[in-house]
Amino acid sequence: MEEVRNQQVPITGLGVAKVIDSEHSNFKKGDLVWGGTGWEEYSIINAFEFLFKIQDTDVPLSYYTGILGMPGMTAYVGFYEICAPKKGEYVFVSAASGAVGQLVGQFAKLSGCYVVGSAGTKEKVDLLKNKFGFDEAFNYKEEQDLEAALKRYFPDGIDIYFDNVGGKMLEAVLPNMRLNGRISACGMISQYNLEQGDGVRNLFHIITKSVCMQGFIVTPYFHMYPKYMEMIMPLIKQGKICYIEDFAEGLESAPAALVGLFSGRNVGKQVVVVARE
Amino acid sequence: MEEVRNQQVPITGLGVAKVIDSEHSNFKKGDLVWGGTGWEEYSIINAFEFLFKIQDTDVPLSYYTGILGMPGMTAYVGFYEICAPKKGEYVFVSAASGAVGQLVGQFAKLSGCYVVGSAGTKEKVDLLKNKFGFDEAFNYKEEQDLEAALKRYFPDGIDIYFDNVGGKMLEAVLPNMRLNGRISACGMISQYNLEQGDGVRNLFHIITKSVCMQGFIVTPYFHMYPKYMEMIMPLIKQGKICYIEDFAEGLESAPAALVGLFSGRNVGKQVVVVARE
Repeated sequence: MEEVRNQQVPITGLGVAKVIDSEHSNFKKGDLVWGGTGWEEYSIINAFEFLFKIQDTDVPLSYYTGILGMPGMTAYVGFYEICAPKKGEYVFVSAASGAVGQLVGQFAKLSGCYVVGSAGTKEKVDLLKNKFGFDEAFNYKEEQDLEAALKRYFPDGIDIYFDNVGGKMLEAVLPNMRLNGRISACGMISQYNLEQGDGVRNLFHIITKSVCMQGFIVTPYFHMYPKYMEMIMPLIKQGKICYIEDFAEGLESAPAALVGLFSGRNVGKQVVVVARE
Repeated sequence: MEEVRNQQVPITGLGVAKVIDSEHSNFKKGDLVWGGTGWEEYSIINAFEFLFKIQDTDVPLSYYTGILGMPGMTAYVGFYEICAPKKGEYVFVSAASGAVGQLVGQFAKLSGCYVVGSAGTKEKVDLLKNKFGFDEAFNYKEEQDLEAALKRYFPDGIDIYFDNVGGKMLEAVLPNMRLNGRISACGMISQYNLEQGDGVRNLFHIITKSVCMQGFIVTPYFHMYPKYMEMIMPLIKQGKICYIEDFAEGLESAPAALVGLFSGRNVGKQVVVVARE
């Protein structure tokens, strides 16, 4: 979204597709692929640096739009590479039931961390606690004072904040950060549609706590995809990680599904079903 | 200063002193020391982790409150360790004629970078360009639009921002950052005395440019002091680096000198002369 606002680049749809014709030696008719496929039923693809052949069809194909695709890599890179988690650390995830957040929370638990997530409905909070195994979760819309809420969940402070929302939540997190804390700046969905962003007024905590706030975009890390697949596939097949998707039927439902992201209407990864085969 | 606001810890004066009596085996009568000596004429020192014996007296002793002391180490760590500069990179320094900034700018030139500094008077801007060797410098008080000013000095963007001021300048820097830029969050002097800090409303640039903003305090890096001395002493003695100090005479001038920092009354490192021997 930032791309749209700042650089006037249109949003590229990421999806799963079947090759119906190909002049590229790596892709042949019948191959399944994921990557930059566009918001359309049929695509002519000329850019191959972001198109991957699907090898493993033992899992729902839609997973390649999420846990096995860009959001999965985003969670993996943003948590393991950017935050360098250590066992026993305190981790906070915002937009925690979303495509990326739900994975970050589970990665944190697998790393032996204590993890708390925030989301915007009771249903999502229940999912975080009962399905994704977060230690605690809260509905940020029900909190009068986010800084105090975080203090309640993290009396000893936060080592790692995986930020999907920016703005007021980031401001509430900063005073709660621990020395040498890390903030993975992954998304700022609370800010994208504001004419004027919310001001973060307490960045001096970054100095006093020696915090590292690292922004990232996932594409330069795609060479790590095979390594990620090696980690994530067994976890999925052994049922050690779970992944929730929210399907909207038909390409015509795509605009509403997109807009719904900004009010949190989706529960889990928002997927638009263009065709089932 | 943040310490004062957040943790109610009093400011400790850093200075140069002569030992007049000692029960510590590392320090004996007549030794010169620098470190946490207090805002006073005579000090009883019981904390030795931040007290260093002065070995080299070939340079003005006051340098041990600055270029050879905490500000020097701050510039060294914040620039070399935090920003990892590469030859040819574009570097911006705010409060650039201050104790730390003047050194960062010179380190940047020694590293083969292009460096621009901001300061608050014509006199300081002249110093930056004519004494410290900055490629360019500007008076931020004379700029209506800081973001546009930075765009003018950095048409290709900023790789490294050494931030001594925070607030509105930080906000102006963010849209000008280059991909994989680094911000060394060293100080936020524009913010310390505000009841409510200036809001930074465009932190999403941290994501889109994959910027790393790293806050730091220098004390955990003091094991690197000998390495720093090895680098800086020859530079001083060969006249390859220059250092400007602003002396206030007498302990009674200290409060006004401290307050003057916030309006930029000092030119160069503010030193309070308690005694000349």
